[in-house]
Amino acid sequence: MRMYDIIAKKRDGQALTSEEITFFIEGYTNGDIPDYQASALCMAIFFQDMNDEERANMTMEMVKSGDTIDLSAIEGIKVDKHSTGGVGDTTTLILGPLVASLDVPVAKMSGRGLGHTGGTIDKLEAVPGFHVEIDKSEFIELVNKNKVSVIGQTGNLTPADKKLYGLRDVTATVNSIPLIASSIMSKKIAAGADAIVLDVKTGAGAFMKSLEDSKALAEAMVAIGNHVGRNTMAVISDMSQPLGRAIGNALEVNEAIETLKGNGPDDLTELCLTLGSQMVVLAGKAATLDEAREKLQENMENGKALEKFATFLKSQGGDERVVKDPSVMKEASYKIELEAKEAGFVEEIVADELGTAAMMLGAGRATKESEIDLAVGLYLNKKVGDYVEAGESLLTIHANQEDVEDVKQKLYENITISKNKVEAPTLIHDMVTEK
Amino acid sequence: MRMYDIIAKKRDGQALTSEEITFFIEGYTNGDIPDYQASALCMAIFFQDMNDEERANMTMEMVKSGDTIDLSAIEGIKVDKHSTGGVGDTTTLILGPLVASLDVPVAKMSGRGLGHTGGTIDKLEAVPGFHVEIDKSEFIELVNKNKVSVIGQTGNLTPADKKLYGLRDVTATVNSIPLIASSIMSKKIAAGADAIVLDVKTGAGAFMKSLEDSKALAEAMVAIGNHVGRNTMAVISDMSQPLGRAIGNALEVNEAIETLKGNGPDDLTELCLTLGSQMVVLAGKAATLDEAREKLQENMENGKALEKFATFLKSQGGDERVVKDPSVMKEASYKIELEAKEAGFVEEIVADELGTAAMMLGAGRATKESEIDLAVGLYLNKKVGDYVEAGESLLTIHANQEDVEDVKQKLYENITISKNKVEAPTLIHDMVTEK
Repeated sequence: MRMYDIIAKKRDGQALTSEEITFFIEGYTNGDIPDYQASALCMAIFFQDMNDEERANMTMEMVKSGDTIDLSAIEGIKVDKHSTGGVGDTTTLILGPLVASLDVPVAKMSGRGLGHTGGTIDKLEAVPGFHVEIDKSEFIELVNKNKVSVIGQTGNLTPADKKLYGLRDVTATVNSIPLIASSIMSKKIAAGADAIVLDVKTGAGAFMKSLEDSKALAEAMVAIGNHVGRNTMAVISDMSQPLGRAIGNALEVNEAIETLKGNGPDDLTELCLTLGSQMVVLAGKAATLDEAREKLQENMENGKALEKFATFLKSQGGDERVVKDPSVMKEASYKIELEAKEAGFVEEIVADELGTAAMMLGAGRATKESEIDLAVGLYLNKKVGDYVEAGESLLTIHANQEDVEDVKQKLYENITISKNKVEAPTLIHDMVTEK
Repeated sequence: MRMYDIIAKKRDGQALTSEEITFFIEGYTNGDIPDYQASALCMAIFFQDMNDEERANMTMEMVKSGDTIDLSAIEGIKVDKHSTGGVGDTTTLILGPLVASLDVPVAKMSGRGLGHTGGTIDKLEAVPGFHVEIDKSEFIELVNKNKVSVIGQTGNLTPADKKLYGLRDVTATVNSIPLIASSIMSKKIAAGADAIVLDVKTGAGAFMKSLEDSKALAEAMVAIGNHVGRNTMAVISDMSQPLGRAIGNALEVNEAIETLKGNGPDDLTELCLTLGSQMVVLAGKAATLDEAREKLQENMENGKALEKFATFLKSQGGDERVVKDPSVMKEASYKIELEAKEAGFVEEIVADELGTAAMMLGAGRATKESEIDLAVGLYLNKKVGDYVEAGESLLTIHANQEDVEDVKQKLYENITISKNKVEAPTLIHDMVTEK
């Protein structure tokens, strides 16, 4: 078998066999196949696409390229959730305890990563004492006992995907549905998921800007999951403005607590109930999405969801009093209001630019070496569709510096106010339960 | 400027600016741009094509990447001829002296190369004493004096093309019209051509198998030539069977002599008159193709073309008696007839497989290190459309080995005889004089 022939075959629009995909992924991972052939193939895939079987084979080959996490010692169906990324996305913090309160096991492997705010682990570390330095046996024990635990990324998962993604990132071949879908799905499967719920963001602040592309990606991932024996569902949710009201680590923990109590922002609450229902159904803890949603709402109202969060935090060293008193977390020194310059309806809040503003305050990492300030961030008092008076606060800046003029300027540039009435955007654009 | 953005732009179907093409070719040649980005761009070009201006810019950037040959000291319009390659193509040997006999200056830079038979220089070396070890000033002097001279490849011409072609060859991106066209045209322009005549082969033995692709390539090259101020014309000629009757170095020299005398095979003679007429018109030595053809035929009949060949050979040390007595060249020890196994009409002679058979006899190089046997080769007694009796000779094998069973077997496998009458294939499929 020759890599040349594989490139030519895909270039000419033919489907690659399972053996050809194995040859490519194995050869590329171990260095037998050079970057320049891999990038030519990725560009050919960009134009010629891959069918469902190729996508599934690609995914499983990337899984096989490295370690896989064995979660078989955990009782029940392990459902993982993945979001394609957005701004102010607090859903992971909420969904873990929320579905665990219905006995859905949540064995979450998470990271720190780069971006507007920290990763899930950074956010949780805003709770004093919380840590993820537990070994694998303790992790499994905690999930079996409490149904929810978070551990740092461990092992050499999907090295083929890491190497290939690095190459795609510099050869303009990231934006290909079969390559994105197999990349995401391989990581989830390697991390031990039995079933997967996907939150595919759409809009200005998302990786996929158009609804059409977002839907294609969601369908591609659901098809892969079901092809390889992992029940998979997806939600396509709005990311034209930030989700919820908080952008920042401690601020988002606080928002998660409010949401678990049933007092969260409408959009964040609704998205968590939608995704959570899918997780509960896939875990076999409810027969229908409606039944699942009812049970989740019940546990928000009766306090069980919040209680689960407290148990989870405590089990990993965190100060569980935070669920009743957020002030146990560090607070920023300055709270500065961003006052509306004119009255009107909020027309646009550019999600990724607000994320950048939060990063400028220190809430996220620009490089791997950056230190995160867990206390700082933004809190949106108004969202798209809301009416605001001139001088009223659009949002509150939580800063550890007095001078935030540059941040303010960026925020003003990215929040538009209209004299005309504006509708709030649709939150849930679509759901994909099978292709 | 970033290579990433150039790849993404072409991937999305946009035209690259002159500055972007310069950035790519300069950066790739000097090593700033890595192979994996160049191959991704080539694959994007494969799918998204390039417009006339991009193709012209690409060509001229490759010219600029290395040395160029200055032929300005040669009087008159220097017309170069290029063939896209086939089997038994003796046209270069004939056209040089033929058009030089009408005072068209032919300053030919030629190579040895790999293939079924040797390159033009190898073939000419079948004439005892002939050599191309002359310096540039002598070369120019000879062209001014005799109107024809051949020199070996000199200088570092189009290194960008060499590097890029090497990459395309292993990434399945050779077969792209804009990339092929700019590659060929850059080499001709760097070698100093004022005007260019192209012989684009089509059919089973050619690089371009379909007439449609051959025509697209011809039009692309003619457009580039005219875009960059080099008058260019093209002929699309048949390569479904070998051209002429001889395949092999000395055999082709002999065939060239016969053709210059007006006794050559019909197809080879016709193609030489067609290409030669274009060369004569582009050099300004005739007003119309018809007038040029008449003059060329005249010089075949009156002996001036043959005389020019003798003068040319002698000027570079060759034994000019060869034009009257081919036996001054080495002859093969064995002449073995390939007898038809049955009577009928020759239906197919697979050109490239016959080329391979000639190479098996030693007529061509399989690797750069191979020695060529200038005497051996094949001589076709029958061509497609001819009737053959059972036992009559289809072709004569000129060998320096007694046992040629493997060669015979290959030949039998690739010559088909039909009971039904077969038409000879069309020789000149099309002519492209401007886009």
